[in-house]
Amino acid sequence: MDQLDRYSHQIEQAINQLHLPLQPANLYDPLRYFMTLGGKRIRPILTLMGAALFGEKEERALPSALAVELFHNFTLIHDDIMDQAPLRRGMQTVHTKWNANNAILSGDVLFVIAYQCLEQHDEALLGPLMKLFNRTAIEVCEGQQMDMDFESRADVTIDEYLQMIRLKTSVLLGCALEMGAIVAGSDLENRKNIYAFGEHLGMAFQIQDDLLDLYADPDKFGKQVGGDVLADKKTLLSLNAQRMANGAQKQELIALQQQNNQEKIASAKVLYAAIGAKDECVTVMQEHHQKALDALNRINGDDSVKQMLHDLAEYLLIRTV
Amino acid sequence: MDQLDRYSHQIEQAINQLHLPLQPANLYDPLRYFMTLGGKRIRPILTLMGAALFGEKEERALPSALAVELFHNFTLIHDDIMDQAPLRRGMQTVHTKWNANNAILSGDVLFVIAYQCLEQHDEALLGPLMKLFNRTAIEVCEGQQMDMDFESRADVTIDEYLQMIRLKTSVLLGCALEMGAIVAGSDLENRKNIYAFGEHLGMAFQIQDDLLDLYADPDKFGKQVGGDVLADKKTLLSLNAQRMANGAQKQELIALQQQNNQEKIASAKVLYAAIGAKDECVTVMQEHHQKALDALNRINGDDSVKQMLHDLAEYLLIRTV
Repeated sequence: MDQLDRYSHQIEQAINQLHLPLQPANLYDPLRYFMTLGGKRIRPILTLMGAALFGEKEERALPSALAVELFHNFTLIHDDIMDQAPLRRGMQTVHTKWNANNAILSGDVLFVIAYQCLEQHDEALLGPLMKLFNRTAIEVCEGQQMDMDFESRADVTIDEYLQMIRLKTSVLLGCALEMGAIVAGSDLENRKNIYAFGEHLGMAFQIQDDLLDLYADPDKFGKQVGGDVLADKKTLLSLNAQRMANGAQKQELIALQQQNNQEKIASAKVLYAAIGAKDECVTVMQEHHQKALDALNRINGDDSVKQMLHDLAEYLLIRTV
Repeated sequence: MDQLDRYSHQIEQAINQLHLPLQPANLYDPLRYFMTLGGKRIRPILTLMGAALFGEKEERALPSALAVELFHNFTLIHDDIMDQAPLRRGMQTVHTKWNANNAILSGDVLFVIAYQCLEQHDEALLGPLMKLFNRTAIEVCEGQQMDMDFESRADVTIDEYLQMIRLKTSVLLGCALEMGAIVAGSDLENRKNIYAFGEHLGMAFQIQDDLLDLYADPDKFGKQVGGDVLADKKTLLSLNAQRMANGAQKQELIALQQQNNQEKIASAKVLYAAIGAKDECVTVMQEHHQKALDALNRINGDDSVKQMLHDLAEYLLIRTV
């Protein structure tokens, strides 16, 4: 995908040109470190595509694209503290390499820098961009809070779980795309549809993530297969298993809690499939994928960019489970 | 000061009308709690005064005033985590009453809500308001980082210390006033002067704070007199004492480190005065007070509001040392 590479290159270049101050070093060094850990830069690429989709030069959307990417990185730095995660993308997290105080404050200032990026847009765009960006930022915080709350709750419903991943993950993809559309001066109907495309793509992607944790090919999967199961993490898979299990299967789920390591992972794979939880997740994932494509089809925009977004969705959701 | 009370009432009313969501409770309950702890609301009052100074109805500046106050409270919530402070305004801090994770995330969302307040302004104002607010927010983060860095540094200079309190405290007062001026459509020259008034007022107030810690009348002072000395905190007083001490006094300063409690406080009072550090601080404080008044005099604005700002400066700096 040549065009995608070009977008990706533009994002990397813009990140490199941020020119963070040298002092105070304990404030900015963590950001220099974290921003070079990479990542797929999916969100800012979506912003550029959102602008191109409605006939705007993608460069004009770079400030919004950067704002979205910096905001995303700010949330990762703070989430890593809250989750006590030692590693991110195979490297030390900020609070591990420095300390929690540095991670809090560096995250805070990164968030401001994200807003500072928005300043570069024409003043006429600031209102709608800010409204969408602020609303989304609040939703992402709410999603993270729900995720943390779920850890100590035994009564999480499927709807609550879907709402959590929508807020924590999906809305930012919708926001990223719609900010590009706003920069391009798109009308409200097209904005609504491109947001819906991103939101449903995000849902499908996150549900696929839950599925891959248990059913991925270990040779192709970057992380340890079964990590969620070992940590007794609530996922769409485990919640559906709880909900759909018959009497005997409920006993097997209880027995599963007592097992360890490879045995537990192997048992969960078989049990979740037998219960029908795996198929149910695949169905919900495919529904969101289809809703994303439906929204895309409703858009009145550049056909080549629509095709690219279609292909991107296929690419992100291609990893069969 | 009837007019000040009216401003203060408008701020409290606006805070009460924020209508924070009920869920997730762990995200918003800490904010409901923290925002009712009160405080003098000096900063948002300054924003209203900044607007009135240049002939605008103060209500029109309420969104900016709220943004400044919410931002200030966000920094307090995060600073309290970093400083491991158990109490704020005599009440439990958020990370003590809930936990550090709640305090991080509640702080984050409060910061977004501050930006959301700005959305309510006319779109034509958003650009200049955002530029000033963002720049100031970054400076406040830098000031907090410098403050934390100072704890483990033995070579902090007077200039560095003054720069730290300027960033951590003073710029937000300048920003608060100038945002009001922006809402009123003031010209750049007046904006520069009202910002300078706030900045120098902030410097004088913070230096007075350093002085009061040791030289306040214990019966009138809300906190323990000598707290900074007991904690060996770097203040303009202690840094000047180090810098100005002669040979014998340097020995006495070293001996001071070994003392404890009331003895240490009493010794520091006498020694800092004998060295001339107290007088030096008073001089620097008065210089900033004078610079604030000079800037105020240069302003072409409503005379009654100018008088109020003059009186406010006298009121804030009246506590003789």
